[in-house]
Amino acid sequence: MEQPSSAPPSDPGLQAAVGDLLGVLAYGELTAFIRMAVDCDLAPTIALKTATGQLATTDFARYTQLVDHMRERGIDPEAAMGPFVAPLTAFHERTAPKGWLEGLVKAYVGDGIAKDFYREMSAFVDEETRSVMQAALDDGGHAEFVVQIVRDAIRTDATTAGRLALWGRRLLGEALSQAQAVAVERDAMSALLVGGGVDLGEVGRMFTRLTDNHQRRMNRMGLEA
Amino acid sequence: MEQPSSAPPSDPGLQAAVGDLLGVLAYGELTAFIRMAVDCDLAPTIALKTATGQLATTDFARYTQLVDHMRERGIDPEAAMGPFVAPLTAFHERTAPKGWLEGLVKAYVGDGIAKDFYREMSAFVDEETRSVMQAALDDGGHAEFVVQIVRDAIRTDATTAGRLALWGRRLLGEALSQAQAVAVERDAMSALLVGGGVDLGEVGRMFTRLTDNHQRRMNRMGLEA
Repeated sequence: MEQPSSAPPSDPGLQAAVGDLLGVLAYGELTAFIRMAVDCDLAPTIALKTATGQLATTDFARYTQLVDHMRERGIDPEAAMGPFVAPLTAFHERTAPKGWLEGLVKAYVGDGIAKDFYREMSAFVDEETRSVMQAALDDGGHAEFVVQIVRDAIRTDATTAGRLALWGRRLLGEALSQAQAVAVERDAMSALLVGGGVDLGEVGRMFTRLTDNHQRRMNRMGLEA
Repeated sequence: MEQPSSAPPSDPGLQAAVGDLLGVLAYGELTAFIRMAVDCDLAPTIALKTATGQLATTDFARYTQLVDHMRERGIDPEAAMGPFVAPLTAFHERTAPKGWLEGLVKAYVGDGIAKDFYREMSAFVDEETRSVMQAALDDGGHAEFVVQIVRDAIRTDATTAGRLALWGRRLLGEALSQAQAVAVERDAMSALLVGGGVDLGEVGRMFTRLTDNHQRRMNRMGLEA
């Protein structure tokens, strides 16, 4: 397995893994756009509709950047995204938010888990891919918007806080279960982690880091993880 | 009533009417954005998801342009949009599309009716408002995309063609009924039409033009009006 480099990878395994990573990242942005637009529909005021609409269009802009990048390096975007349609659709179907606040928590938690995962993976890819991924993960302060709204909403409402805490736990469980299904399915991407000098213990520690970060994010919203 | 001019109107009635027009146009774009994002969710392929997502973000960009324009001329966007939240929400609740094709037909038909209406109204407003409205109505060839998809879908499916023809008729009926409710409610906007040297016979002819144009759009999609 090659070390990270600044040139697109010539190793076919690494090339396939990069296609997988960009594919799942792009399709994730596309579905995030749709979910955020649905949150925009549920938002209780015009000001909140405007803010969530803005987040949604940012997600879509990132999606088009990733698609452009794939085309530039000879990756067919639809072929790269294809394997991730089913797991991402399953995740979203199993975690359909009931109402505006659940939608926001899902956006924040889901976005956070995705970012952690890609940050872990970005150590193994070439520099160009890394910088495209980093740009796609830069949230431009969007997360802060969500944190503030959730904190305000639960300040005087312990029932909602409890419900959202449970919701956050379910989101993490569903995300990890879909991630596991993807890992089994996508040899190249798993090989990138496990074959790239990473032992299985390290994979375990990565999952611990993901879970810790999730806990931290829940706490930032004022929710028990 | 003043003639169209290039300066923002000083007449308070005209100023109120312009606020109404920009408000309903902006909130219409915001809801069009949300509906198009839902269509994106329903789209059967990644390519169609990408195309409809692009339409949705264009709607949102127009929405922010209209909001910016309102702010520049001292109109509070939320106050201007407020009166149209209920009728537009009612329209969308009464015409929730069942599936991807109904969503597309609704986008095309709804967009067309809105454009006709604003084109009729733009004769009565100042030049700056007119040019902002015109920009918001420029669809950049989006409509063609919808026409092609619907024509392809019904080519070999008479049942779908019949169902979509009925759907188009219902959309027009619901749109006109909500428009009438708005006209009764919003004195300034109605006065712009009726007070601006337009007699009631002319208003009737305007509705005939809207209906004729609707018929033409349905026929373009290959549907009976």
